Amino acid sequence: MRTEMRLTGSGGQGLILAGIIFAEAALLDGKNSLQSQSYGPEARGGASKAEVIISNEEIDFPKVEMPSVLLSLTQVACDKYHGEISDDGIFIIDETVDLETVKDGVKLYRAPILKTATEVVGKSIVANIVAIGYITEITKIVSRESIEQAVLSRIPAGTEELNKKALQEGYKLAEMALK
Amino acid sequence: MRTEMRLTGSGGQGLILAGIIFAEAALLDGKNSLQSQSYGPEARGGASKAEVIISNEEIDFPKVEMPSVLLSLTQVACDKYHGEISDDGIFIIDETVDLETVKDGVKLYRAPILKTATEVVGKSIVANIVAIGYITEITKIVSRESIEQAVLSRIPAGTEELNKKALQEGYKLAEMALK
Repeated sequence: MRTEMRLTGSGGQGLILAGIIFAEAALLDGKNSLQSQSYGPEARGGASKAEVIISNEEIDFPKVEMPSVLLSLTQVACDKYHGEISDDGIFIIDETVDLETVKDGVKLYRAPILKTATEVVGKSIVANIVAIGYITEITKIVSRESIEQAVLSRIPAGTEELNKKALQEGYKLAEMALK
Repeated sequence: MRTEMRLTGSGGQGLILAGIIFAEAALLDGKNSLQSQSYGPEARGGASKAEVIISNEEIDFPKVEMPSVLLSLTQVACDKYHGEISDDGIFIIDETVDLETVKDGVKLYRAPILKTATEVVGKSIVANIVAIGYITEITKIVSRESIEQAVLSRIPAGTEELNKKALQEGYKLAEMALK
């Protein structure tokens, strides 16, 4: 079992950190993981991406080729990356993003991730943590226990309650979508 | 021209962040870069590593195979990774690390990186930034201008002076070593 995940949005949304947190959670779950981001001419275009590979086995090929989990928090990122998703992939976009169609077989989820961070949790900077909660609940790619531990190990001291709240709100949004 | 760099030490020393900063600096220099870290059984042993590939061309093969720049901030990391360095590589270790021999052709630098962070800059947490300054000056792998911009874009607001000082002290240590 190998899962490829791509997190896309704009620079400053904390997607690299989100990728690191997923990779650490996978390790806590007893799996192998690899987190990476590449910078090249395409990184100058306003879309940012972070990638994670999670596997029960050793990760021989360290490149994301066709993610089965894709997040797009911005229109620019969605426009750029929406075509690259596996046939039975899970595609999560922020509700501010427009997307007309997806491939047959792809499950699309549209959720108010940015708005929840700003209006419910109260800090736009935790949108990445809301997204982590949402993705975790929708995909079950890592356990809740491990993701919580990984989040807490990677955030600045003093922001624990804020980030726990962000994670919970992400779970909640996903629970509503799954009903 | 492709350069592979491996930064090793213990978890909590900020080596992933250091890798991200190098990768962003390379982008600012007009190059392509890839930053990654893998987590697996070996990550449970107390040694942490982050990897960066910098290239003038597109990075087709995204795996570090034989780094030409290797940093080890702890004994455990050095013991584990010292054998994997290219024949003409640059190997930088903290002065607290013991290493009896290196391969012919490898240039070894031993520097008080951790001590400088604690005693000169005044915060052990900036050891990664001291290391960045040191590596930049020794290897010239990225420009000073770009590394400074990349450091400032990735550190918490309010810590600019501390981190600039850490970078300067890293340069200074390297200048002494190169004399």
